[in-house]
Amino acid sequence: MSFMRAARVARVATPLPRIVAPRAVNFQARFNSTNTGATLSGANAVPNPAPAPKKRWSRLRALKRVVQLGVVGGIGYGAYDIYTKRHPIEQKPFDPTKRTVVILGSGWGAVSFLKSINTDDYNVVVVSPRNYFLFTPLLPSCTVGTIELRSIMEPLRFITRHKSRNVKFYESECTDIDPESKTISITDVSDIKGAVSNTTIPYDYLVMAVGADNQTFGMAGVREYACFLKEIWDAQKIRTRLMDCVESAGFASQTPEEVDRLLHMVVVGGGPTGVEYAAELHDFLKDDLEVWYPELADKFRITLVEALPNVLPMFSSQLIQYTESTFKQNKIEVLTKTMVKQVGDKEIKVMDANKELVSIPYGLLVWATGNCPRPLTRKLMARIKEAQTSPRGLLVDDYMRVAGAPDMYAIGDCTFSKYAPTAQVATQQGLYLASVFEHLARIEEGQNKKITPFEYSHQGSLAYIGSDKAIADLPFLNGNVSIGGVATYVFWRSVYISNMFSFRNRFLVVGDWMKSKVFGRDVSRE
Amino acid sequence: MSFMRAARVARVATPLPRIVAPRAVNFQARFNSTNTGATLSGANAVPNPAPAPKKRWSRLRALKRVVQLGVVGGIGYGAYDIYTKRHPIEQKPFDPTKRTVVILGSGWGAVSFLKSINTDDYNVVVVSPRNYFLFTPLLPSCTVGTIELRSIMEPLRFITRHKSRNVKFYESECTDIDPESKTISITDVSDIKGAVSNTTIPYDYLVMAVGADNQTFGMAGVREYACFLKEIWDAQKIRTRLMDCVESAGFASQTPEEVDRLLHMVVVGGGPTGVEYAAELHDFLKDDLEVWYPELADKFRITLVEALPNVLPMFSSQLIQYTESTFKQNKIEVLTKTMVKQVGDKEIKVMDANKELVSIPYGLLVWATGNCPRPLTRKLMARIKEAQTSPRGLLVDDYMRVAGAPDMYAIGDCTFSKYAPTAQVATQQGLYLASVFEHLARIEEGQNKKITPFEYSHQGSLAYIGSDKAIADLPFLNGNVSIGGVATYVFWRSVYISNMFSFRNRFLVVGDWMKSKVFGRDVSRE
Repeated sequence: MSFMRAARVARVATPLPRIVAPRAVNFQARFNSTNTGATLSGANAVPNPAPAPKKRWSRLRALKRVVQLGVVGGIGYGAYDIYTKRHPIEQKPFDPTKRTVVILGSGWGAVSFLKSINTDDYNVVVVSPRNYFLFTPLLPSCTVGTIELRSIMEPLRFITRHKSRNVKFYESECTDIDPESKTISITDVSDIKGAVSNTTIPYDYLVMAVGADNQTFGMAGVREYACFLKEIWDAQKIRTRLMDCVESAGFASQTPEEVDRLLHMVVVGGGPTGVEYAAELHDFLKDDLEVWYPELADKFRITLVEALPNVLPMFSSQLIQYTESTFKQNKIEVLTKTMVKQVGDKEIKVMDANKELVSIPYGLLVWATGNCPRPLTRKLMARIKEAQTSPRGLLVDDYMRVAGAPDMYAIGDCTFSKYAPTAQVATQQGLYLASVFEHLARIEEGQNKKITPFEYSHQGSLAYIGSDKAIADLPFLNGNVSIGGVATYVFWRSVYISNMFSFRNRFLVVGDWMKSKVFGRDVSRE
Repeated sequence: MSFMRAARVARVATPLPRIVAPRAVNFQARFNSTNTGATLSGANAVPNPAPAPKKRWSRLRALKRVVQLGVVGGIGYGAYDIYTKRHPIEQKPFDPTKRTVVILGSGWGAVSFLKSINTDDYNVVVVSPRNYFLFTPLLPSCTVGTIELRSIMEPLRFITRHKSRNVKFYESECTDIDPESKTISITDVSDIKGAVSNTTIPYDYLVMAVGADNQTFGMAGVREYACFLKEIWDAQKIRTRLMDCVESAGFASQTPEEVDRLLHMVVVGGGPTGVEYAAELHDFLKDDLEVWYPELADKFRITLVEALPNVLPMFSSQLIQYTESTFKQNKIEVLTKTMVKQVGDKEIKVMDANKELVSIPYGLLVWATGNCPRPLTRKLMARIKEAQTSPRGLLVDDYMRVAGAPDMYAIGDCTFSKYAPTAQVATQQGLYLASVFEHLARIEEGQNKKITPFEYSHQGSLAYIGSDKAIADLPFLNGNVSIGGVATYVFWRSVYISNMFSFRNRFLVVGDWMKSKVFGRDVSRE
């Protein structure tokens, strides 16, 4: 069992004081051996009769100074970073002699590509219905207020305004792509529109990074009654509905059956999203709702429904067991081998492990069963159906080129490949594609460059499972290290924080974590 | 002119260091005169050849110690306060021998009454469609993200759970009041309801604190096209629509006329709400939008429309002038003596100061023209119409008793009285009414208590006018002090912060202020 390694790995997250401290003391020790301690004490330069305590003092002082220096340096760097981020430089205008790259999307793939592409070489246009990047791995934390919604959003302009050349951004939905004429049709989908709200824009290269839709298996009622966990408004909706359930259960003379139903939270899908949501929900019930709604405390229930024989199939077996036993301790019921057959407004019908049809009444239903292609992706696939033979997503080659469409690339969840639909894959693909474009520009200039195929480097899998515990499968020396527990949770946090695209987001998320630890979570219904 | 007094008054806001510092030094000076300085320096107890710098050092150290002590004490008190707030005590159950007070509302009046009423004497039931208190004076700041919405919300449970007796809260709308049978009808208005969502509850005493509705003068289109500034969702809607206007103006090949229209923000109503909103909007345009949307920078316009000859009629004339000149500097156009005649989806028609009908195209329209009674209040007034002769709100006597309805009290904006509809008035009325109920309980016990009528004590008027400037009219020695400027802005902030009901809100709002100063405001469209 590798659980004991948790502490060692977690230490990676906060190694600074441990490394700095001994170094500082050693430095001071050397300094003292060549000088008298007296030179350090300024005005009180008298021979010291008790050198031992003096030495300890001066060591401590030196340590203090090093820490101070570190803090000042850190603050200085932070201030410089913040200042430059808030004061973008003047940008070059579009250059008609350069090729135009149109990026569809503003998620992990799109933004990692956008951040890396050299706008000296290209004119860049971004089209997305959201004018911000969303740090999706922390979305489950937002459903209960552990983190506030805006803390995991980063406006795209905070990125585009720092490119060397002006980047055009259109907050709109791409409704159609014509690979023949190399144009896309876009529509402004906001509440307030101008006279022009539909147009067509041409591209030289197109980067599809539109992500995927929620998989409902075509089941009636899912879109109507369930909540998803993909966009910021999904998290907002869950937060509101959850408090609706709680307050409606507390309504004057509510029936006991209805109280039980309203306080039963059902999660469909035992992947990382469903598991993390159930975990966050559990924390919210324990830490907050039971305090503020003591009369309902013993009525709250969480059930996780999964069609496969276990949750988290991508994790190693001991971590699956660990998760299931933690969930058991936390009184989260896990129904494996259970298929949802019907979704109503107040109950779902499932085929349980014994192949019996069972009715499960719920107050809140969260649906996290994975991805299916977006309508735009399907439309494009239909246009080039000779090359696009999979219904599960765009087929791309090892260079992220869309099969059957010239000068079109696709990355992330809109593709169907051997890789899991994760932020990690999309980010690496975005980075890779930016390097491809760099090479293309150099080749166009006549240089001799060879473009190598995309290679994915797996950094590990992480999931939060509640009660300040997390699990991690990490590749290590051609093998795998599986860790789980509270220390892994600290590691989980550090990894998420270090993976954020901006210092601002990091600061906000850490602030929110502290805030919810100190003050508890907000139980206002909004 | 009294503008020069600004600095003096503002100093009131942060006097602590100035008062503490000299005291600390004096204390140390006395201490030194009766002891040798040597006793203070521990191991280095040698006669000191240079007493003067030593003395200064020890004074500084004492000062440091006092500051440290203050900080430690402050943190200790804060930690204790936070701990007790998060760990509410067990509460007594309802006592059938006590009278039941039903409070309608969760605003300034209701919450100030709720916080003060002694639940040893009464059973208390609160009915409100919102399960939180909203710090409305900072709502304009939330429309642009200077402050985040949840920072000015305080869940009611954070208050009710700390009363000595259990307080029932029903998140629902009161739809009818029957003063004859002394019952109210309530309806659960949330998205998720239980089987029971309508019921009737009896009261011994009723406290009406439902606030008021937005005044639209019955004009068609206002509710449909304009945004109000009363509830949290109003601020959210403005924030989303504003970014919609900006992004739609930036849509590919938008027409110049439409860009002008979309970026024209019109505010109707020159009271404190309208003025503060225009001010916050100006700051957002200057500090943030012009940085991130440079191509639109010179197109943003703000217009304030007011029917009276000037804005802010409740302020002294020099402050009105100061506000109008500040607005002029900030290029906020103020159209006084201008009446709105018609509201469309893209323009309003106004009768201007020259009695000419003019069309004003807008992208975002914010309507802040004051209050009118809510449907519930009107319904109640109709039931007791002999006593309720004013259409503008509930008539109450000097003891806040509703004319024509026994055992019913009303406070705040749902009443019509000689007082302005402000948070200050409602708060004082709530506090006063709690003392009335205290007296009633004692009288019931046979004690001889005399209930005195309500007397309002005006603490002053404050408004933020943009560019880090605020104005204040403060009563002073039977007269009035008028101050305006940046120092008043610091004062304005201090007053708001000190008027918040919880340390948590204070911490969050100060955090948000710092956050938006350091990182700028979020321009994500949500």
